[in-house]
Amino acid sequence: MTTTLELHPDRLFPIDKDCREITRRLYDAVKTLPIISPHGHTDPSWFANNELFANPHALFIAPDHYLVRMLYSQGLTMAELGISSKNGDVVADVRSAWRTFARHYYLFSATPTGFWLNHIFSELFNLSSQLDESTADHYFDTISEALLQESFRPRALFEKFNIELIATTDSPIDNLEHHKALANDNWQGKVIPTYRPDSVIDPEHHAFYQSLAKFGQITGEDVQSWDGYLNAHRKRRAEFIALGATATDHGHPTANTANLSKEESALLFERVINRQFTKEDAELFRAQMLTEMAGMSIDDGLVMQLHPGSFRNHNEQLLVQYGADKGADIPVKIEYTQALKPLLNRFGNNKDLSLILFTMDESTYARELAPLAGHYPCLKLGPAWWFHDSAHGMMRFREQTTETAGFYNTVGFNDDTRALLSIPARHDMARRVDCSYLARLVAEHRLTESQARKIAIDLAYHLPKQAYRIDKTS
Amino acid sequence: MTTTLELHPDRLFPIDKDCREITRRLYDAVKTLPIISPHGHTDPSWFANNELFANPHALFIAPDHYLVRMLYSQGLTMAELGISSKNGDVVADVRSAWRTFARHYYLFSATPTGFWLNHIFSELFNLSSQLDESTADHYFDTISEALLQESFRPRALFEKFNIELIATTDSPIDNLEHHKALANDNWQGKVIPTYRPDSVIDPEHHAFYQSLAKFGQITGEDVQSWDGYLNAHRKRRAEFIALGATATDHGHPTANTANLSKEESALLFERVINRQFTKEDAELFRAQMLTEMAGMSIDDGLVMQLHPGSFRNHNEQLLVQYGADKGADIPVKIEYTQALKPLLNRFGNNKDLSLILFTMDESTYARELAPLAGHYPCLKLGPAWWFHDSAHGMMRFREQTTETAGFYNTVGFNDDTRALLSIPARHDMARRVDCSYLARLVAEHRLTESQARKIAIDLAYHLPKQAYRIDKTS
Amino acid sequence: MTTTLELHPDRLFPIDKDCREITRRLYDAVKTLPIISPHGHTDPSWFANNELFANPHALFIAPDHYLVRMLYSQGLTMAELGISSKNGDVVADVRSAWRTFARHYYLFSATPTGFWLNHIFSELFNLSSQLDESTADHYFDTISEALLQESFRPRALFEKFNIELIATTDSPIDNLEHHKALANDNWQGKVIPTYRPDSVIDPEHHAFYQSLAKFGQITGEDVQSWDGYLNAHRKRRAEFIALGATATDHGHPTANTANLSKEESALLFERVINRQFTKEDAELFRAQMLTEMAGMSIDDGLVMQLHPGSFRNHNEQLLVQYGADKGADIPVKIEYTQALKPLLNRFGNNKDLSLILFTMDESTYARELAPLAGHYPCLKLGPAWWFHDSAHGMMRFREQTTETAGFYNTVGFNDDTRALLSIPARHDMARRVDCSYLARLVAEHRLTESQARKIAIDLAYHLPKQAYRIDKTS
Repeated sequence: MTTTLELHPDRLFPIDKDCREITRRLYDAVKTLPIISPHGHTDPSWFANNELFANPHALFIAPDHYLVRMLYSQGLTMAELGISSKNGDVVADVRSAWRTFARHYYLFSATPTGFWLNHIFSELFNLSSQLDESTADHYFDTISEALLQESFRPRALFEKFNIELIATTDSPIDNLEHHKALANDNWQGKVIPTYRPDSVIDPEHHAFYQSLAKFGQITGEDVQSWDGYLNAHRKRRAEFIALGATATDHGHPTANTANLSKEESALLFERVINRQFTKEDAELFRAQMLTEMAGMSIDDGLVMQLHPGSFRNHNEQLLVQYGADKGADIPVKIEYTQALKPLLNRFGNNKDLSLILFTMDESTYARELAPLAGHYPCLKLGPAWWFHDSAHGMMRFREQTTETAGFYNTVGFNDDTRALLSIPARHDMARRVDCSYLARLVAEHRLTESQARKIAIDLAYHLPKQAYRIDKTS
Repeated sequence: MTTTLELHPDRLFPIDKDCREITRRLYDAVKTLPIISPHGHTDPSWFANNELFANPHALFIAPDHYLVRMLYSQGLTMAELGISSKNGDVVADVRSAWRTFARHYYLFSATPTGFWLNHIFSELFNLSSQLDESTADHYFDTISEALLQESFRPRALFEKFNIELIATTDSPIDNLEHHKALANDNWQGKVIPTYRPDSVIDPEHHAFYQSLAKFGQITGEDVQSWDGYLNAHRKRRAEFIALGATATDHGHPTANTANLSKEESALLFERVINRQFTKEDAELFRAQMLTEMAGMSIDDGLVMQLHPGSFRNHNEQLLVQYGADKGADIPVKIEYTQALKPLLNRFGNNKDLSLILFTMDESTYARELAPLAGHYPCLKLGPAWWFHDSAHGMMRFREQTTETAGFYNTVGFNDDTRALLSIPARHDMARRVDCSYLARLVAEHRLTESQARKIAIDLAYHLPKQAYRIDKTS
Repeated sequence: MTTTLELHPDRLFPIDKDCREITRRLYDAVKTLPIISPHGHTDPSWFANNELFANPHALFIAPDHYLVRMLYSQGLTMAELGISSKNGDVVADVRSAWRTFARHYYLFSATPTGFWLNHIFSELFNLSSQLDESTADHYFDTISEALLQESFRPRALFEKFNIELIATTDSPIDNLEHHKALANDNWQGKVIPTYRPDSVIDPEHHAFYQSLAKFGQITGEDVQSWDGYLNAHRKRRAEFIALGATATDHGHPTANTANLSKEESALLFERVINRQFTKEDAELFRAQMLTEMAGMSIDDGLVMQLHPGSFRNHNEQLLVQYGADKGADIPVKIEYTQALKPLLNRFGNNKDLSLILFTMDESTYARELAPLAGHYPCLKLGPAWWFHDSAHGMMRFREQTTETAGFYNTVGFNDDTRALLSIPARHDMARRVDCSYLARLVAEHRLTESQARKIAIDLAYHLPKQAYRIDKTS
């Protein structure tokens, strides 16, 4: 027996009837606004090559670390999920893995993954029963067929989703071939790169030296010297900008920054280059590089994003056998007030700098991040991130930042995803939650409805464009 | 003038009328389910000997650290509360102490203690006026009389409360005489022990060496050698299992774990045995022992519970004069992501291990615990613990863990109490809060009501049985 | 086109209709109660001299760090806001600065600053349109005119606001001339000082040695000796008490306390006096002085207040150019359980001591502060502080402390402000939020309405008087 899958038009809205009415009106004002996706992990080759997607497993299960982690946590093996280890062991075929997923789909009740998937299943594939054991094959077949349609090619989806702009995340040693191809293509979709230099900034990155060598080749700079290394960054940033980039992104273990003299920096870099650095050196080097990046941002206008506080690949055995990004990244406690001070001492009052901060440690929202962003002209708050990119999580973000930082020190929503199909669902969730929060404020007579409507539109559309300086591209 | 005491059938339910209706229906499905109490501190002698309780003071005031702490915080002395110091000073008689309690009962407004006590007063003793100065004697007399009835013997209460199973918490040097007596008794109630080895694991425990000696005697092992010490644990665990135990419990200051070699462990143990250890050694020994216990759990199937982060006996003067457990334990900040890594590196992917984590640092719910439990197959989240075993506290637990870990990485409710009479009230509160949370999700169209009903029943009944492997006993 | 400014009578109340009805009734019982303001930063000269205020800019913009920080965070310069640097650079005239403020007033949507200002604009100045660019001059002129009226003199406002008592915050080296003048004046308003000795207690305070010298002169004690230094405190405390003081206030970086012997303290003090102290010495000295202050409080009855955890003047450049208190204080993570132990070991069970704790690290509410205050007779919790003195912030305070500490270990509201006009708005917000919280508990059948009404009145009026021992003054 199947159970109906229906997306209720009021989903995620406040329960109180009058408040829900206000929410509906606010949501009506934003629901069809174009999507600005200034931070994400879609693959630029999708848009450049515009090829069909392979099958439901390759689209939904294999690449989705949210989904894999939950199933894994309940004792399912990677093999049962159809995911091969590095040893290439025998794994379930894609249909069997899909059935396993379907049988455990109830685990996603009340999770954002469940919300996104139901949205996709219903809106994109017109599926009208819940996914479970009994509907697994029907789902698999329906989706498989759909994926053969022209309307499921990446560009068609981009247009159908009403995406105005999407930013990918790219390595400084990437040749950006797909972005170049897109620049030379007459397709109108705007897909821009983001400069994510972690692999050439973090001496503890597993591929640091290899990446650095490539960084030298690609830029023609002597990246063994501090000056040459900085020049290499400047050159690559310029090339990213030429292809539309408006931002950099930095995924550091902590938010530490430093403000060393040129001489100290050069000596530190020497230790790094000579592989004679301590853990403290590595941390200091990353810290100093954030400040260097801020300086370059003031020169070239790229917005900075800092995403600290994830303990990557926490599951050692899984890393060895299956590699990175298998859902084993775990947040840690983090500190901003002291950590950012060196950078802020140097550049904090410079309005040409825009540094967007993210966190997975919600205790920092009200304690550190809102007070910092509510004071420094260069700081803004990124949206609720990763595990907190969820209905409750977004609500906590607003509740804990608005009274100190207001709405205008925040930057709207980031979908931060490699799951192309989920992009509309994610933005829809953010719009629903923001409208719900605003409607509550209206119902509590803290805002007028017309103020709330303006804010809702700003959050959904104008703030991301301003914060990421998107009108300056094109 | 007395004020009426009434337990409203909708207490703790959401305010919105439609949402309350949903809650009522969900609650109807769980309210009479048997109580599974897999973690608590009732005294097995109660059930073995089945004697009458002494008087209202001995039942409600003296042993209840929640109650004593609140009254003490408002300046009442232990003597006024009828509690003797170690010097055996003169204290208020039990009726006077009861009157003092009654006069200050308003302090418990909106606290879980107040909720539990009102439940007991109304449901068990049919009291229909609020406890205050004017009703103090009436309460004292009514309760005193009731306690003489057969229906107030421990076994009768156990049955009246519809308890399917209760676990006590027991020391490895306890001879388990009451559990043995129960095993040989034809009473049907299921009362099982839990292996709580803190006193023979924590070198800083005030009775460590004394306990260790006893541990050697009771097991016949040479507990001065690392191998003999581990064997002693194995033996005692087997004896606990033979009497029905399904779990161990570990109350450590931190969540630190270690993964030392056998040689390192033996050397560390030698320093401990020779009383030549540093504070760091003590911490490392506790950390290593968690990993050892995990290894034994994989062998013998006992579920592990870890309750870290309580600064025990914080009030030095009170400890000296009145001893432990007088309401002076205070939580501290705690860390899990790094602390658990050594244990998880060794056993994290082993499905035979089940490690249930508790916290009093709510900032870890969304930041560390839900992400950890939402990935590692061996980890589950215990319910809102101690100070957070409250209506708001339980709601925060669900709000901050569900979106990342789902419902099925949690284990239902623990009453964690030595207050036998409060057990139904505590489980009732948990069921009411879980149903309220689920009803909100239904009203917000995030779950269907039938999904919510299934989850409510799982949380109240099936999950604790599965998580604590209870069906395997008997 | 202007938009209407209206203060809705139900603002900040719960949305649910029945719950809102309850809130209205509770609020009716407290809304006109006299204001007790036991902790604030108004200038005693206002009341002593009773002079007219200068202009809207001097009243609203220049001194309000909440307001300046938000405008500054959005890229407005101090000069645009009419605030001079130490170099006395040319800045916008007061009317232009007011227009700039008006143009950006939307930034304060849903912030406490916006709530307070709208209250003042509507209630005090009868303004009926929202402040924006189009109404900027009308506002400026209306307020300017009003400020010339007798009814806007400080004493008239004090009476109009129904203030029963206000405490200012004063340095031990202040000669208290205004408080003395008030004592000799036959005006009935009660304005009392508070002993805030940070500048003579913190060796790292920029004016420590200068203040210390003055401290010696004003007391006639040898403040170069440990005994003389302590005597100087005792003398000044007595002089504050003679002018009505009932409390001390301590704004330390951390909550650390110490319990050194007399000899250790004297040696530490010697290092401080000789400017030969380390950072650790400075921290230890502050820590020891909290314990010394507690000892003196037991002798002379002054209530202690501890406000830790603010990183003062985080913006280095702003500090250099504009000085302190420009909205650049940022909270840091803080710890209480271990930090307070030395003081509590010595005095924790002494009922003559009353120590009120504040925090800007909300993660400590449920984890440390409520458990501490719910046990120690000497501890109470101050209200939601600074950035958390907001509608959501106050609600979080109640939700996270009530179940463990109850209502009677809290002390009612502090406005903590130098913005005289905002005092009624701030107390009104606190009363609205407390009544909303209580009404929810009533609607959830956790309290009866009559219990809630009594608590509401206690929170608004009786608890601050008791906690600050105010009836003992006069």
